[in-house]
Amino acid sequence: MDPTTRRHDATEAERLAAGGPPDTDAANATALRRISEVQPFLVDVRPAQEVADLAPDELLHAGPALTGWSEACGPLRGSVIGALLHLKLARSIAEASAMAEAGAVRLAPANDRGGLATYAGVIGGQTPVLVVKDRISGRLTFAALNEGRGRALRYGAYDKETLAKLGWIEGEFAEVLRRALQLSGGIDVLQLLAQALHMGDDGHSRQKAASALFANTLGPFLLETGCKEAARALRFLTQNEIFFLPITMAAAKNAMMAGEGIAGSTLVTSFAANGARFGIKVSACPGAWFTAPVPTIDGRYFEGHGPEEASPVIGDSEIAECFGLGAFAMAAAPALAPYVGGTPEQAVRLSTGMYAITLAEHPRFKVPSLSYRGTAFGVDARRVVAERIEPVFNTGIAHREPGVGQIGAGLGRVPLACFESALRALQGAQR
Amino acid sequence: MDPTTRRHDATEAERLAAGGPPDTDAANATALRRISEVQPFLVDVRPAQEVADLAPDELLHAGPALTGWSEACGPLRGSVIGALLHLKLARSIAEASAMAEAGAVRLAPANDRGGLATYAGVIGGQTPVLVVKDRISGRLTFAALNEGRGRALRYGAYDKETLAKLGWIEGEFAEVLRRALQLSGGIDVLQLLAQALHMGDDGHSRQKAASALFANTLGPFLLETGCKEAARALRFLTQNEIFFLPITMAAAKNAMMAGEGIAGSTLVTSFAANGARFGIKVSACPGAWFTAPVPTIDGRYFEGHGPEEASPVIGDSEIAECFGLGAFAMAAAPALAPYVGGTPEQAVRLSTGMYAITLAEHPRFKVPSLSYRGTAFGVDARRVVAERIEPVFNTGIAHREPGVGQIGAGLGRVPLACFESALRALQGAQR
Repeated sequence: MDPTTRRHDATEAERLAAGGPPDTDAANATALRRISEVQPFLVDVRPAQEVADLAPDELLHAGPALTGWSEACGPLRGSVIGALLHLKLARSIAEASAMAEAGAVRLAPANDRGGLATYAGVIGGQTPVLVVKDRISGRLTFAALNEGRGRALRYGAYDKETLAKLGWIEGEFAEVLRRALQLSGGIDVLQLLAQALHMGDDGHSRQKAASALFANTLGPFLLETGCKEAARALRFLTQNEIFFLPITMAAAKNAMMAGEGIAGSTLVTSFAANGARFGIKVSACPGAWFTAPVPTIDGRYFEGHGPEEASPVIGDSEIAECFGLGAFAMAAAPALAPYVGGTPEQAVRLSTGMYAITLAEHPRFKVPSLSYRGTAFGVDARRVVAERIEPVFNTGIAHREPGVGQIGAGLGRVPLACFESALRALQGAQR
Repeated sequence: MDPTTRRHDATEAERLAAGGPPDTDAANATALRRISEVQPFLVDVRPAQEVADLAPDELLHAGPALTGWSEACGPLRGSVIGALLHLKLARSIAEASAMAEAGAVRLAPANDRGGLATYAGVIGGQTPVLVVKDRISGRLTFAALNEGRGRALRYGAYDKETLAKLGWIEGEFAEVLRRALQLSGGIDVLQLLAQALHMGDDGHSRQKAASALFANTLGPFLLETGCKEAARALRFLTQNEIFFLPITMAAAKNAMMAGEGIAGSTLVTSFAANGARFGIKVSACPGAWFTAPVPTIDGRYFEGHGPEEASPVIGDSEIAECFGLGAFAMAAAPALAPYVGGTPEQAVRLSTGMYAITLAEHPRFKVPSLSYRGTAFGVDARRVVAERIEPVFNTGIAHREPGVGQIGAGLGRVPLACFESALRALQGAQR
């Protein structure tokens, strides 16, 4: 997994990398500045349809668009089936499957609506979502509430216990959380993440410190709601070590959106997978996805599971890496290494290897053990192609069959072909 | 501050180190095993006089016994004056000073009563203390509640605001905390510390993760007390990054006490300073202190302060280093380094340098970035003398005048003379 071990054929790469227009550096600087100026605060919990343009029969999923239900991977199928049962649109697994098969549900990328889906999780119009607002521009982004580790809809599980828990999370819990957030006046997401990186988090797969700090910050407000459900809500919050992940994602999405649409900019604004293809977005072409078949994940599997059971990778949470977190900040998270099947030394090599393909060091996310160096920040598609270093990311691994759930976690690389395809499109547009 | 840079004259050292009786290794193994078997849980908050043998005119302080008031350093004087005002035994600073001068207060080492004083803090009979209980033996140990950073009685401040805050902490807050602890059934201190070491804490000067985890663990129980003061209590708890320090200290004391009184054992069971002398205790001589003049602290001073204003070091919190935490675990806490005036690289060197003078690696406290190696644990007085490596510790620094407070933090070394003196006494006893 070392950056230096992934070399590709250079002939076309060199041609593509050399051909950037003269104003690309300035465009990238503008994009980076705009991203860095965003002040994302978690402000609310609301049904997705109040924040995004979302039809009643639509479900938002991770990654670029799918060609149809036939392309949906197992965990996504599980998640859609679970969502139909949860929303009481189907009475049985068989009925839910048949509905999905018959096209009663339209799938669309969350990423294109200002939202993000965690792993195979789906978001319907009624799904309560965490709403992040940029204090400067007012832009809203969103992601679904995290269910905790273990069996979860976002990993394709849809058993009764999973759905009962989800019912409580999206019902009673979401309402208490909403009231507490209103009392708090909003939570500064980056301030909290910056601290978490000094406390062993990477800001993607390890969210233990951020989740603890978030529960600390929100706890007194939960209490002040006076709701009788506050103790139960606080207990869930304090015991969910990954709760802060979708909050991080929505904040990262909000920031990266500020960098979209700068003519000539080769800055990458999204990493995401749909279980079939990995897609990236590039600033200069905000509407387009540049895709390649999903890469294989080098993973560590839970007891009793192995790579032959693994689903192809899916999820929008790799926005974290886009924003200088996750595998780009893994040097700050030595205790994460065993979870993704690596070592702390490898984590440092991987994170520092990313400086070769990024434009800057993150102004807020500093790694104490690297003399407080900012994390590698702002992936430049040109540099990826020129250096032939594929960006690294970490991720959970789900079982390939619907209804099972998470079976491990690991590391992957964003395919070089995505970046080559993006550069080709940019050069075409500029001709 | 590197271990290798502190070398002393070897002649007497070699003589002392060579003379250990043949059963010392077995005695040390017994002491270490007993220490490792302790299961310290935070169980209660009670007035100190209910836990310890403490006369009405006594105040417990850090370190070995003082010869009298004339030997008390500035911060300790400030703390005694503040305590007399706080307990309404004096109406003015002048009256409190005169009382102390006249011997109306008797000072005694907390360490000799099963308690510990943080920095220059003092504990009277009515002071509510955090009570830690060993689940196996039932042994109780205690330490005073932490007031938070900034101005605090434990650093010798006694202004109105400091005393008003202390009044609330030892009144309303202590009562809500007590009720919540009872509902919780007790908090497993080591389980929490082990996690905190994976989250950038050293278990002594940096307690940010442990305090956050503690607030999260206790938060739901605070709520369930139904007290109207619960929100205020939770807010104080979640905003006090050093709250867990006295809990750590009482747990470490509880564990180290289990290792006391093993004939022939050269294991060190306490490190503590009284502002004049640094003292250590050794297993084979549980009643005795082996002392030397306090060492100088290499510190980093807050804006506007410098070493010429520093008080000589005082405090019982170096029990943390005795127990494999603090500077012995600083490799786990890169973000602590700037606070104590060092670098993360130096922190790793200092922590790993301690393996040369310890008997074991801590079975619970693991450092992820050192491939999950246990921290250096169980200081052997023989090895300190033989290797001439003085144990390192970290500490806050107070202003030398009473009434000011903390002005910095830094690193110090436990004087070699303490260990030489202990070995001499052991050999004398065995002749």
